[in-house]
Amino acid sequence: MEVEVKFRVSFDDMKGKIEDLGAEFKGEELQEDLYFSLPHPELLRVRWIRNLGRAYITYKYIQDPGKNEEFDELEVEVSDFKTAVEILRRLGFKEDVLVKKRRLVYKLGDVTFELSDVEGLGSFLDIEILSDDVVYAKERIWEVAKRLGLAEKDVEPRLYQELLKEK
Amino acid sequence: MEVEVKFRVSFDDMKGKIEDLGAEFKGEELQEDLYFSLPHPELLRVRWIRNLGRAYITYKYIQDPGKNEEFDELEVEVSDFKTAVEILRRLGFKEDVLVKKRRLVYKLGDVTFELSDVEGLGSFLDIEILSDDVVYAKERIWEVAKRLGLAEKDVEPRLYQELLKEK
Repeated sequence: MEVEVKFRVSFDDMKGKIEDLGAEFKGEELQEDLYFSLPHPELLRVRWIRNLGRAYITYKYIQDPGKNEEFDELEVEVSDFKTAVEILRRLGFKEDVLVKKRRLVYKLGDVTFELSDVEGLGSFLDIEILSDDVVYAKERIWEVAKRLGLAEKDVEPRLYQELLKEK
Repeated sequence: MEVEVKFRVSFDDMKGKIEDLGAEFKGEELQEDLYFSLPHPELLRVRWIRNLGRAYITYKYIQDPGKNEEFDELEVEVSDFKTAVEILRRLGFKEDVLVKKRRLVYKLGDVTFELSDVEGLGSFLDIEILSDDVVYAKERIWEVAKRLGLAEKDVEPRLYQELLKEK
């Protein structure tokens, strides 16, 4: 299970705080996420990481719709973004939203920080843990979030693609 | 466009003939092809090449249904067979037939020879050319087929998955 909480942040300010925490920088990714229309609470996405030349097909089932913090996730890397998109089109899936972002990834133990500047939406920090123990994961995420000065009021429960469609 | 003609053959006899023709051996593949139910004339398959540890998602549109010699093909390599299969299941596709074969691949110029021993069905040779010029491709395939002693009576127009379901 992928457990994550998304916060609205100031990019440069949060970058400094994450680094001060001693988190290890894992890399920068220029991501283009193409979402296909799928009945709620399922998600289907093809991600292209432009600067690394890598692409992924990802299926997610949202376990807590509305809150959007618990995801059952299946992902495979694919050899070509455009061909993967075309196969899904041929199989009848319709393109919905394209989310473009610059993302910095950090790790601190079992916690992953994804600090993103999302085109048209601003900056966000996803704090993520892979664990089937949701209670533990949420506690650990909030423990780290508080050390970064984040609070409940900073949480953004909506998905990026929902935010883009609401604009 | 993928243009190919499938012949029923004797494996060892045909192996010798292909090598006598001067074709270059490209490798041996132990393939497991899982087909999903899709409305005719579309095909959706996840291939696992066990001995090479590689997997592919392939979508084909049969341009000449019944004859099954002309295919519009889209294919991506994927990082994991089982996860790719599970994603397609979650997207609503139903597993149909599993085709297992041992395949030897040879190349002679623009012609590919796929000599297969298919579990439960016997041996077959696919002679294939990638070209949008179907007339040229068919002529070239038959020119080579005749040099291998193959004739119209040896052609097997049915797909492997059709042959397995008819058993």
